[in-house]
Amino acid sequence: MILATKVFFTSFVFGFILFPYFIKLLKKISKDGQPIRSCGPESHLITKKNVPPMGGIIILISSLLPILLWAQLTPEILLLILITLFFALLGFIDDYLKLKTNHYRGLSAKTKILIQFIVALVGVFILKLYSAECFTKTSLFKGVIIDFGYLYVPFAAFVIVGSSNAVNLTDGLDGLAATQVITSFAFLGLIAYITQADMNITLFCIAFIGAILSFLWFNTHPAKIFMGDVGSLSVGAALGLTSVLIKREMLFAIIGIIFVIETLSVIIQISYFKYTKFKYGEGKRVFLMAPIHHHFEKKRWSENVIVMKFWIISIICSVFTITFLL
Amino acid sequence: MILATKVFFTSFVFGFILFPYFIKLLKKISKDGQPIRSCGPESHLITKKNVPPMGGIIILISSLLPILLWAQLTPEILLLILITLFFALLGFIDDYLKLKTNHYRGLSAKTKILIQFIVALVGVFILKLYSAECFTKTSLFKGVIIDFGYLYVPFAAFVIVGSSNAVNLTDGLDGLAATQVITSFAFLGLIAYITQADMNITLFCIAFIGAILSFLWFNTHPAKIFMGDVGSLSVGAALGLTSVLIKREMLFAIIGIIFVIETLSVIIQISYFKYTKFKYGEGKRVFLMAPIHHHFEKKRWSENVIVMKFWIISIICSVFTITFLL
Repeated sequence: MILATKVFFTSFVFGFILFPYFIKLLKKISKDGQPIRSCGPESHLITKKNVPPMGGIIILISSLLPILLWAQLTPEILLLILITLFFALLGFIDDYLKLKTNHYRGLSAKTKILIQFIVALVGVFILKLYSAECFTKTSLFKGVIIDFGYLYVPFAAFVIVGSSNAVNLTDGLDGLAATQVITSFAFLGLIAYITQADMNITLFCIAFIGAILSFLWFNTHPAKIFMGDVGSLSVGAALGLTSVLIKREMLFAIIGIIFVIETLSVIIQISYFKYTKFKYGEGKRVFLMAPIHHHFEKKRWSENVIVMKFWIISIICSVFTITFLL
Repeated sequence: MILATKVFFTSFVFGFILFPYFIKLLKKISKDGQPIRSCGPESHLITKKNVPPMGGIIILISSLLPILLWAQLTPEILLLILITLFFALLGFIDDYLKLKTNHYRGLSAKTKILIQFIVALVGVFILKLYSAECFTKTSLFKGVIIDFGYLYVPFAAFVIVGSSNAVNLTDGLDGLAATQVITSFAFLGLIAYITQADMNITLFCIAFIGAILSFLWFNTHPAKIFMGDVGSLSVGAALGLTSVLIKREMLFAIIGIIFVIETLSVIIQISYFKYTKFKYGEGKRVFLMAPIHHHFEKKRWSENVIVMKFWIISIICSVFTITFLL
């Protein structure tokens, strides 16, 4: 437990010290900040201007450092680090292309997801080689265990890729992704602590909580920095893989309820638009804007009200998952 | 542990259902909301207008109900409930006088603190009669125990009254007191769980966390309701007495670091003003305005940045206290 607090403070203090320098540095490099998508809420074109992206780089440095220092580098932890770094690289390329071409689109969505899925598949397959028989099983409620058999590998890969992109979609308001990720890591870490003997995964979660708390210090509305794709894709993948490693993929869908809702809102919006366009010749929308946090923005909820209410929802749902364990 | 989640959900759901009705009711009764002190930040005269006070009433109903239902009514829990209700009554009178006379001052500060101190003294004295020999001892670090002897009774009363008024002072920005109180109850509850066999105090903390989370839903900037003195004085007293009951009064000063800083800022501001007035004939100020959250407001920090940064500070300090236990 002393180790846990050591990891927590190291990652927080590191982030807290590094962010101000990083913000200055990035402001020098990119004078206009991250290009804002012109189809987003109008106010964002003003308030989100000149805010440097790529805060995820510091999140990763300050969280992975204490893990490398103090966690045992078991195959699981190594895979966590590797997958996180790979998704970060992909996000970095995306962020870099955005800055370079000064356009809000980076890599094409299809290319990104295809690469992600292949990497996740390979990762989970390697893990399967190292793991025990029960690897293909996952538990939903206490005592209710589902055996996926060979389907477990694509299922686990889907969880990782889905989580990565869901966090990416959620990252649209100051502090929204950060607060959600903190809750998810806190409860996944807690579940790992309650159900397993492996303290290393709990340490991994704690390191990220510390780093993201220091990020939140500068990301609270009005934000001084964004995490960027390098942050959201990697942190999302780390969350997904953590849930796979502790065999609680289903509970993660409840803990990360906001990620699920945000993703569903986009799927529903696009599907309904395409369907009505096909059927009536004119595309209709379900939400004023998707992802759903923009819907509430259009309804004139203030940015931090949305962030706080979404946070409360995720905390309530996360506490709910604990009842499944005990 | 199942009991803990039951208490948590009951208090949250109760609050969540009751608050909207209560807000409507209070808006009918008091058309202009709580009078805003004219010497506060100018913006508050506009943004805080028409916001009904006394949200504390619902906090207390929705937190005390599950405690009465499911916690064992030990002498400690009974005293917690009684002290909380007494401080609530005092706060209610204060709130009511404010509404009635349409002035931001209610009872005089001296009268309030005198009554509070007497009640707290009586409460702690009764507790001493029921408690074991070690009652006068309190532990700071692991293994370092201080014995206050007879001085323990006034000391414990001071903790309760101090905490009550500190929360009251802190309650000046939307969501500030609520977020701080949630952290304090969470960590005091955790310490009670780790160090003691008495689950009832942990249940008491959890009930308040649930109720205040539901309050925070409506209190996030821009707030739809304030907790009022009925909330801040009672919740503060409950926190203080909880720290007394688990014998971690010193650690509570670290967990509740923001309460301490807010109170100190007022003491420093007033003392320095009086000192300079006496010495140079002209009163000078240390902060742009006290309590310190107004200082940062004057420095043009946005309200939710202050709330979030203060919250992060309290979380970091609270985690720090856990290292003292393990």
